[in-house]
Amino acid sequence: MFNIALLGAGRIGQIHAANIAAHPHSTLWSVVDPNPENAARIAEKYQARQQSVEQTMSDPEVHAVLIASATDTHADLIEIAARHGKAIFCEKPVHLDLARVRDCLKVVKEHSVPLFIGFNRRFDPQFRKVKNDVLQGRIGKPESLVIISRDPSPPPAEYVRVSGGMFRDMTIHDFDMARFIMGEEPVSVYAQGSNLVDPAIGAAGDIDTAFIVLKYASGALATIVNSRRSAYGYDQRLELHGSKGLLTAGNILENQIHFFGEGGSLSALPEHFFLQRYKEAYAAEWQHFVAVLRGEAKPECSGDDGERALYLADKALESLRSQREVDL
Amino acid sequence: MFNIALLGAGRIGQIHAANIAAHPHSTLWSVVDPNPENAARIAEKYQARQQSVEQTMSDPEVHAVLIASATDTHADLIEIAARHGKAIFCEKPVHLDLARVRDCLKVVKEHSVPLFIGFNRRFDPQFRKVKNDVLQGRIGKPESLVIISRDPSPPPAEYVRVSGGMFRDMTIHDFDMARFIMGEEPVSVYAQGSNLVDPAIGAAGDIDTAFIVLKYASGALATIVNSRRSAYGYDQRLELHGSKGLLTAGNILENQIHFFGEGGSLSALPEHFFLQRYKEAYAAEWQHFVAVLRGEAKPECSGDDGERALYLADKALESLRSQREVDL
Amino acid sequence: MFNIALLGAGRIGQIHAANIAAHPHSTLWSVVDPNPENAARIAEKYQARQQSVEQTMSDPEVHAVLIASATDTHADLIEIAARHGKAIFCEKPVHLDLARVRDCLKVVKEHSVPLFIGFNRRFDPQFRKVKNDVLQGRIGKPESLVIISRDPSPPPAEYVRVSGGMFRDMTIHDFDMARFIMGEEPVSVYAQGSNLVDPAIGAAGDIDTAFIVLKYASGALATIVNSRRSAYGYDQRLELHGSKGLLTAGNILENQIHFFGEGGSLSALPEHFFLQRYKEAYAAEWQHFVAVLRGEAKPECSGDDGERALYLADKALESLRSQREVDL
Amino acid sequence: MFNIALLGAGRIGQIHAANIAAHPHSTLWSVVDPNPENAARIAEKYQARQQSVEQTMSDPEVHAVLIASATDTHADLIEIAARHGKAIFCEKPVHLDLARVRDCLKVVKEHSVPLFIGFNRRFDPQFRKVKNDVLQGRIGKPESLVIISRDPSPPPAEYVRVSGGMFRDMTIHDFDMARFIMGEEPVSVYAQGSNLVDPAIGAAGDIDTAFIVLKYASGALATIVNSRRSAYGYDQRLELHGSKGLLTAGNILENQIHFFGEGGSLSALPEHFFLQRYKEAYAAEWQHFVAVLRGEAKPECSGDDGERALYLADKALESLRSQREVDL
Repeated sequence: MFNIALLGAGRIGQIHAANIAAHPHSTLWSVVDPNPENAARIAEKYQARQQSVEQTMSDPEVHAVLIASATDTHADLIEIAARHGKAIFCEKPVHLDLARVRDCLKVVKEHSVPLFIGFNRRFDPQFRKVKNDVLQGRIGKPESLVIISRDPSPPPAEYVRVSGGMFRDMTIHDFDMARFIMGEEPVSVYAQGSNLVDPAIGAAGDIDTAFIVLKYASGALATIVNSRRSAYGYDQRLELHGSKGLLTAGNILENQIHFFGEGGSLSALPEHFFLQRYKEAYAAEWQHFVAVLRGEAKPECSGDDGERALYLADKALESLRSQREVDL
Repeated sequence: MFNIALLGAGRIGQIHAANIAAHPHSTLWSVVDPNPENAARIAEKYQARQQSVEQTMSDPEVHAVLIASATDTHADLIEIAARHGKAIFCEKPVHLDLARVRDCLKVVKEHSVPLFIGFNRRFDPQFRKVKNDVLQGRIGKPESLVIISRDPSPPPAEYVRVSGGMFRDMTIHDFDMARFIMGEEPVSVYAQGSNLVDPAIGAAGDIDTAFIVLKYASGALATIVNSRRSAYGYDQRLELHGSKGLLTAGNILENQIHFFGEGGSLSALPEHFFLQRYKEAYAAEWQHFVAVLRGEAKPECSGDDGERALYLADKALESLRSQREVDL
Repeated sequence: MFNIALLGAGRIGQIHAANIAAHPHSTLWSVVDPNPENAARIAEKYQARQQSVEQTMSDPEVHAVLIASATDTHADLIEIAARHGKAIFCEKPVHLDLARVRDCLKVVKEHSVPLFIGFNRRFDPQFRKVKNDVLQGRIGKPESLVIISRDPSPPPAEYVRVSGGMFRDMTIHDFDMARFIMGEEPVSVYAQGSNLVDPAIGAAGDIDTAFIVLKYASGALATIVNSRRSAYGYDQRLELHGSKGLLTAGNILENQIHFFGEGGSLSALPEHFFLQRYKEAYAAEWQHFVAVLRGEAKPECSGDDGERALYLADKALESLRSQREVDL
Repeated sequence: MFNIALLGAGRIGQIHAANIAAHPHSTLWSVVDPNPENAARIAEKYQARQQSVEQTMSDPEVHAVLIASATDTHADLIEIAARHGKAIFCEKPVHLDLARVRDCLKVVKEHSVPLFIGFNRRFDPQFRKVKNDVLQGRIGKPESLVIISRDPSPPPAEYVRVSGGMFRDMTIHDFDMARFIMGEEPVSVYAQGSNLVDPAIGAAGDIDTAFIVLKYASGALATIVNSRRSAYGYDQRLELHGSKGLLTAGNILENQIHFFGEGGSLSALPEHFFLQRYKEAYAAEWQHFVAVLRGEAKPECSGDDGERALYLADKALESLRSQREVDL
């Protein structure tokens, strides 16, 4: 049984707490949060203890930490955990600054602790099946990938200001997905974007609508379609065209009820947002991490994956500003 | 916190054990099973105790029993539990013999304990939404209901022999679904059936393929389409036509991946069988039962519902044998 | 080139006129209608002549007649045409009275003219593909067929009064479809029905909602679901379940546009009514009839098929009235 | 009645001949083709005459010409027809060289004859409905458009060599579609492409796979996804995301049959290629052109539209070569 300390008791921390507790080989040992009420609520529910960062890190009973705290604390917590020999599950991103990410990963490597970065979508059964189907040659050689990724509604401008911008905050998931599906590193990136959804986002120096084009050495192409708004809920689709066919992964609908009336037939919306849509993915990534703890697997999303996705986001931003394709 | 004794540690008992343990207001207190290994496995996992029926019933810490044991033990266990003042959650059916059901329910009523019969499909979010949409008048006055219900593969002939026949064993769920959706008791039933799937079923005196027609006092009609076989998995659909439109509840597919190739486009199968398909329904019915324990609700499926569904099964059999419509 | 006389210049006659004119081997030679304006409109458009029944029948240039006149004239016109040696395409039904049908077919046989009965749905590419797939063994042995057939809105009560009742007027298409798909004659029929849509239909002694169950010697079953009303347009679906799988033929939608907005996703309605839905079927049945004229084929829907469908309608009515299964 | 001369009796000419003949206000008057057998076949079928270009142009009975000949003859034929005062329906493109297009359009304007360029997809009922829905504000302000357009298989390399390249030959349709749907001219274009399908295409200096990004002054974005190959047939879809929702136009399938078996559910392929997929569009554009002849409408696709689409193709090629966004 592995004892897990949860750092960060917010919305996503609650999801992880439930998965930790439900897994037969992991226990929620302790909860750490600057807000003691948040920590207490989760600790009580799962009969865990509340700890400070220091207590957790020096607690020999803690085998691994799950970092689900504010983004700007990730790199520091990773380093502390690494120095204390804890295995690490960290929500993306490691940090918004690429140099800081690299320094942090150096520390992790020095201490030889496993580090898993929570690119949850890789563990979505849908996208994973696409990946597996591709590996089995179902569509032949991959030629073009279209990722459509839209959030239901834009974040507040205050968040946007500290988010690192849409590419580092939101598109980073899609960059990772492109890497996951294509199994090949892109050699160039082009980005085009607009501020259409909320003027406050533009005032904060960011965009909310974007198309990104990636080219691969094989000649394959990928595009990412992003929006910070979607009137019909969380839009998470992709399709991969290859020499022998097309694979599409559609939205998961809230239900399979269809109403047929005078005005047409009405079907349900997609699952509303990431907590619902990726519920199974969160459980699956936890299962994977326990397998890492048990020595049965290596982290499928390593710190290097986190670094690479951030690098793509940085280069996309460079393309957006220079209005030209950027070599990678 | 309610302490629950689980009677029956088989496949369906395991599902219930997980839901009991996951619910914030219920605990798996003890497990009872004639096979001690089965009981031990579940008891260990959830840190519950193993008990005999006698121990469970006389244990003052046990607030409620969940009966998931062999069908022919249900009525006896219900009566014992009722006499010991335990609240009762019982898998369908109460008993295969209608007279025995009535006697049993009399005992329950004498002891004024809540009895919930686990017609799981009523708690499926899909079918429940259809029901709610109907209640809100979305399709106007219900006129005709089609329930399609096919199992992936037939049960072994030995099971068929003690099952009470397809109508009492399998169609009983569809009779209850018809009652749930229509909100009205049928006034006549007609049944037609065949033995097409497995000759051993015919040899055991049963059918494996059937159409049933129900008529209601309002003039509305319902039909049930049954088969003990389905090459494409568990087929669980219904559609209700009304004066203002049609509501359909389709199968839940295993995924939303579509492959387009030379031969057409290929989509996933429905969820394989009831454990997968009705996973959410099992959790929801347990939530409902805890609400009953907390005094917040009355059992939505009572013993009377169990009795009524069995009555319809009996009358359908009478129709099948007499080749005529039977008044109810 | 075959010269065709069109008897009946109404809505369905216009469809046939267009198909006759468009076919490379047939010409619309003449039009006959008690209403000279109707006849004139079609005749002018296709540069055909107006004739009386007598002129048409004795015109040696006329190779075949297409009878699309009022139902009660069909049998008489068939007999006259047969006596004049004309090949005959007749809209269903031959007559509403089974004895009259039999007499009429006797005359046709005496004169050895080809008689094709226009069960248009057999020529729908959808249903034909189901049939062909079944013949090729795609679903193994057919076990149960569900035909859902609903008109967009009920006919006027005056029409109902002379229609022979829903079974002979509307369900007759579905009886023929069941015969077409199953390729086997049913051995029993059971019918249940209600008057739910329009009280005037009930006052005229008819029903507007029905379920019919057919049983076959092979043990296979079929059900027909009928309504004279459908808020969402013409509902024409069927599904056939067999030992190796299921084939479904869905509605043809008006378009493939989907709108996703706050309330869900909205798709198009089915093609509105038979003139749109079976447009291709009308063209295909005309192609078939020309092949008959050219000696390349025998009528796929003969007078015997017309008789048999009417026989099933009569027996269904007998079942409805007697509340029991009727042997065939 | 308008007498139409058809210039070009190939595959697409045959489609137009049928539509001309079927329309109540147009007649196929004559057919012109360098291959007399091709011309004769169509002329005979519709009882039209064979003519030379000179005969057609000087024939006072000819009201309009439909130019469906080889691409390199279009501009010359347009000019001759304009000089003879004929109304002109010309298949796209006017010419592959933009300067030649401009000269040609000058001649057309001098002679004030109507010129319609056959961008058939604008008349597809699907895409037209999307356009109309947008105009009615159904999705609010358009924000991002995705056009997916793949041919079933690549053309022979000899054709590629004279085609002007994929952008001018194939993508030109998608550029026009983007203009049609967005109702706004793009201000920049970026193109990325590869030769993945057939090395012979690369050897001919062309690409066969491409992504194109267009930006609009409003900030809206569009992307075009192209391939010269599609294992699953002609892939013609688009989706437009706006502030209030999403509109998608899916492929038209060959049928609505679904087979459910052990391996999943299998549905039909899209209509195979443009002759099938855009059958209705060809009829609709002819109806529009007759309305132009009758003075009831102005050409919805003018020579200027043809010029503009070619301009976009040229600029996309410039972007592809320079690896940067090109201003328009």
